[in-house]
Amino acid sequence: MVKTINIIGTGNVGSHLVKAFEEKSLGKGLNVNRVDPHTLYGLCQEAELTIIAVSDSAIEGIAARLGKVQGVVAHTSGATPLSLLLEYVDRPGVFYPMQTFTKGRDIDCSEVPLLIEALDDKDLEILQNYAGILSNKVININSLSRARLHLAATFLNNFTTHIIGASRKILKAEGLESDLLNPLLTETIAKLKEMSASEAQTGPARRCDLQTIEIHKQLLSDEPELRKLYEDISGSILREYRGAKH
Amino acid sequence: MVKTINIIGTGNVGSHLVKAFEEKSLGKGLNVNRVDPHTLYGLCQEAELTIIAVSDSAIEGIAARLGKVQGVVAHTSGATPLSLLLEYVDRPGVFYPMQTFTKGRDIDCSEVPLLIEALDDKDLEILQNYAGILSNKVININSLSRARLHLAATFLNNFTTHIIGASRKILKAEGLESDLLNPLLTETIAKLKEMSASEAQTGPARRCDLQTIEIHKQLLSDEPELRKLYEDISGSILREYRGAKH
Repeated sequence: MVKTINIIGTGNVGSHLVKAFEEKSLGKGLNVNRVDPHTLYGLCQEAELTIIAVSDSAIEGIAARLGKVQGVVAHTSGATPLSLLLEYVDRPGVFYPMQTFTKGRDIDCSEVPLLIEALDDKDLEILQNYAGILSNKVININSLSRARLHLAATFLNNFTTHIIGASRKILKAEGLESDLLNPLLTETIAKLKEMSASEAQTGPARRCDLQTIEIHKQLLSDEPELRKLYEDISGSILREYRGAKH
Repeated sequence: MVKTINIIGTGNVGSHLVKAFEEKSLGKGLNVNRVDPHTLYGLCQEAELTIIAVSDSAIEGIAARLGKVQGVVAHTSGATPLSLLLEYVDRPGVFYPMQTFTKGRDIDCSEVPLLIEALDDKDLEILQNYAGILSNKVININSLSRARLHLAATFLNNFTTHIIGASRKILKAEGLESDLLNPLLTETIAKLKEMSASEAQTGPARRCDLQTIEIHKQLLSDEPELRKLYEDISGSILREYRGAKH
């Protein structure tokens, strides 16, 4: 018997989920039904699972327009509690892939953690089955823990991106290519996959070298935003390692 | 004729330079002479190049004890001006590899930027020749610009490491393995090698989603240091993209 999964959404997450389900479920009798979030045209009411893959602020509006779908209805948001769906659907769930999806970039989903949540064991098993098609790392987790993991991902992705942007601004001001420090970036990340951050941590703030920190601050005297970022993060490192041997 | 290069230092930078010069100069008639910084025993006075590969605060003490070496004497520090050596040696220089070196981790030096500086063209050519043995990216740059690049490297390596450490603390508090977010880390960095940081930037601060930022801050109410770091970096992103379309 052919089963159907609805995937509502035309953005990056939706597109990647459609592609991944189509590729990984080949020959398994799964119909991957992509649904436009504006019209909801062609939504399959009998689908075992409907995934709402839209931006956080649009989830509720979609859920309110779903009508009588029979299966589990899961959103893909790390920061949104399951409870948002309670008012609109009988069998709410969460299907959150912890990855950054970009148009045109292929992702191998098999190592991407998939965080799932449901109200009862039966729905959890359904989510588990579909998540297992995509990933080897399916984790059953409640809304509060998922919000904390989303916060950890915000540090890891959003903040790292901002810091690397700051570094590249300094290179650019010196007339140098932004990829000049890519070998350093590659090695920095490779080290962090082999050791803890505190083992890998080096630099003036780590060794409490206030003289170099002062020089760095002076070098940023015409860049108040970069200077503040430098002071804030250096202060955080200084406080963490204050009194620690280096 | 066999030439000699002195490399003073027993730490990570010294060890990696000795190994890299030995490997890359095989058959080229170069004698790589490793020198203990405490005794300076066996220092070759006639070496064309002497590299002082010690911590920033130890450079001056070594330089003061070198005596009459004939060749170029270069330190390996990003943050230290060439002028520190002026008082002690006739032909000062800088030989700064922009990479993080760790005991037991091999590095391919060929893509590592090597920043060199000297007082005249003759000495610069010598540094250029030796740097060219190791790397395809040799850059002649003055002390002020080098200090700015060192600052950019501080953001890229030290600050990124600290941020990733913060992310892992949140995972650990949830009882989850620190490598759970490694697929996200890998993809975050891969994206940044293909696009600018501002193109890659996503997240609540980027889209000015104050509601999610508030929830994240509440999740960190028992972690004042992580909360301050979150507020500081989110504030920096908010100010950068304020009014920008997302």
